[in-house]
Amino acid sequence: MHILIIGAAGMVGRKLTQKLVKDGTVGDQAITRLSLVDVVEPQAPADFTGEVRCITADLSDQGAAETLVESRPDVIYHLAAIVSAEAEQDFEKGYRINLDGTRALFDAIRQEHLRDGYFPRVVFASSIAVVGAPLPFPIPDDFHTTPLTSYGTQKAICELLLADYSRLGFFDGIGIRLPTICIRPGTPNKAASGFFSNILREPLVGKEAILPVPETIRHWHTSPRSAVGFMIHAATLDLQKVGPRRNLSMPGLSATVGEQIEALRRVAGDEAVALIRSEPDEMITRMCESWAPGFDATRARELGFTAETSFDDIIRAHMEDELGARA
Amino acid sequence: MHILIIGAAGMVGRKLTQKLVKDGTVGDQAITRLSLVDVVEPQAPADFTGEVRCITADLSDQGAAETLVESRPDVIYHLAAIVSAEAEQDFEKGYRINLDGTRALFDAIRQEHLRDGYFPRVVFASSIAVVGAPLPFPIPDDFHTTPLTSYGTQKAICELLLADYSRLGFFDGIGIRLPTICIRPGTPNKAASGFFSNILREPLVGKEAILPVPETIRHWHTSPRSAVGFMIHAATLDLQKVGPRRNLSMPGLSATVGEQIEALRRVAGDEAVALIRSEPDEMITRMCESWAPGFDATRARELGFTAETSFDDIIRAHMEDELGARA
Repeated sequence: MHILIIGAAGMVGRKLTQKLVKDGTVGDQAITRLSLVDVVEPQAPADFTGEVRCITADLSDQGAAETLVESRPDVIYHLAAIVSAEAEQDFEKGYRINLDGTRALFDAIRQEHLRDGYFPRVVFASSIAVVGAPLPFPIPDDFHTTPLTSYGTQKAICELLLADYSRLGFFDGIGIRLPTICIRPGTPNKAASGFFSNILREPLVGKEAILPVPETIRHWHTSPRSAVGFMIHAATLDLQKVGPRRNLSMPGLSATVGEQIEALRRVAGDEAVALIRSEPDEMITRMCESWAPGFDATRARELGFTAETSFDDIIRAHMEDELGARA
Repeated sequence: MHILIIGAAGMVGRKLTQKLVKDGTVGDQAITRLSLVDVVEPQAPADFTGEVRCITADLSDQGAAETLVESRPDVIYHLAAIVSAEAEQDFEKGYRINLDGTRALFDAIRQEHLRDGYFPRVVFASSIAVVGAPLPFPIPDDFHTTPLTSYGTQKAICELLLADYSRLGFFDGIGIRLPTICIRPGTPNKAASGFFSNILREPLVGKEAILPVPETIRHWHTSPRSAVGFMIHAATLDLQKVGPRRNLSMPGLSATVGEQIEALRRVAGDEAVALIRSEPDEMITRMCESWAPGFDATRARELGFTAETSFDDIIRAHMEDELGARA
């Protein structure tokens, strides 16, 4: 089995690659070939015995999608995107990469399909940014997509394209609406949502973290480990059971910032919590208030997608995966 | 005030032009200029005292949208589209005209906006085809768009673009999700939905009509007169009240075919009803069963959009507007 990961150098892409290499199989099929693609050159995994190709490419460049698809991967993960803040700052770049790039990929697959019936599984990373305030809690699976960012708009459009191309049999697509990933490994970044991870990750290693919002803010989270789990499950799931509604809100954990902090206290003690410093930021608070507080995710759960059910588990997953704690 | 109608040669476009010319104003502003555009040359209205230009153009042609927008219309009606059956038969043409053409229009407006703040009202004709079975009845305003045709997909994508461009202040857009138009004037056509109109229009002039579905089929209708009313109201409505959710399911009348027939009996008698000949068609029946049975349309009603409340009224509107009956 040949697996193509577009966006392989990103956080989810790297973790997905590691997991695929560790498992060696997807479902009951051995992985014999990995094609890793990103706009910066992805790292080849150390312990993979099959063929690996690391490719630097931008889907929105003329001919780039065709070249990738010509190698006939059995599973195509499309995780690449300009992030929300950048897509909002640079309108044309956001539409070019997030919409035109994705459409170029889908059309390249369609052309190969028309040639001889090529029919790969396509797993598309969508986002909870496809919905926009005012939002009910929990958000039902049949809630409309009225995004309040260009990024969310681009993801919602790609979801529609994925469903139409799948309905017409050009490929077997599934859209995975990822919750906010928490705890993101690495260093604090400038994303407005970064604090959700910072206030846990930094105190766990004895560092201070800034909390810019009230503890009452509620949001929708999943661990990097669960996000990778969604991606693996999406590659083998029987899509006949999914039907024409191919875009699924993934399960996650709805929690307030206060609940995050109490979980940190249970797992790492009062000293860790004492490292969180409140520095209210009105703009970030207003943004957070417009974000999704949580989804129902009934369909995804029924289809076998699973996620953590407590923030204690999310913190422990981080300690095991990033800090060498024992499971 | 300068009004541009793209798709002016279509049924709604012609009736909208007539109504604008008859009124002479939109809101409290006099119409001084009309630009009528279609892929076949639109007819100039007879009784208009302002400037009229009839233009043959295809939005998806290079530079066509820019040329239209350079004339700086105050209100832009975008009614042009490849219809559902054709978009399904010709995938590339459907996406080119219905998606790329619309995006070219929106981008041309954006460029003019970036130049000097040009900020027209844009009224986009969307469709109930943006939703797809299984559907609740009535369909709430916040129901998701999971179209089952490429046409519906293209309309849903354009709705998302319209909302994003409006949110960013490039233009002041509103999307009008039209119910099925009934009674369509003219002669029977090959559209699968044509019978909804045929079974009323033909008997009213003493001609036979074929009914391919059971009388229990329920669907969502509005008269050509109401559709034009939506378009006029959409040009002057205060969109601050609408907020960022710019695409509205219009009010209409939910009725079964049996209810349509009983209305015909009340208005035109048993002889008219006797002209309807049942000729069951399984394929058309299956298609109808997947179509929208009716919408809640709460938001549109609250915003002042109105439609007929009985099929008797829809039939009478046709008799007045098409058959010279007195109101």
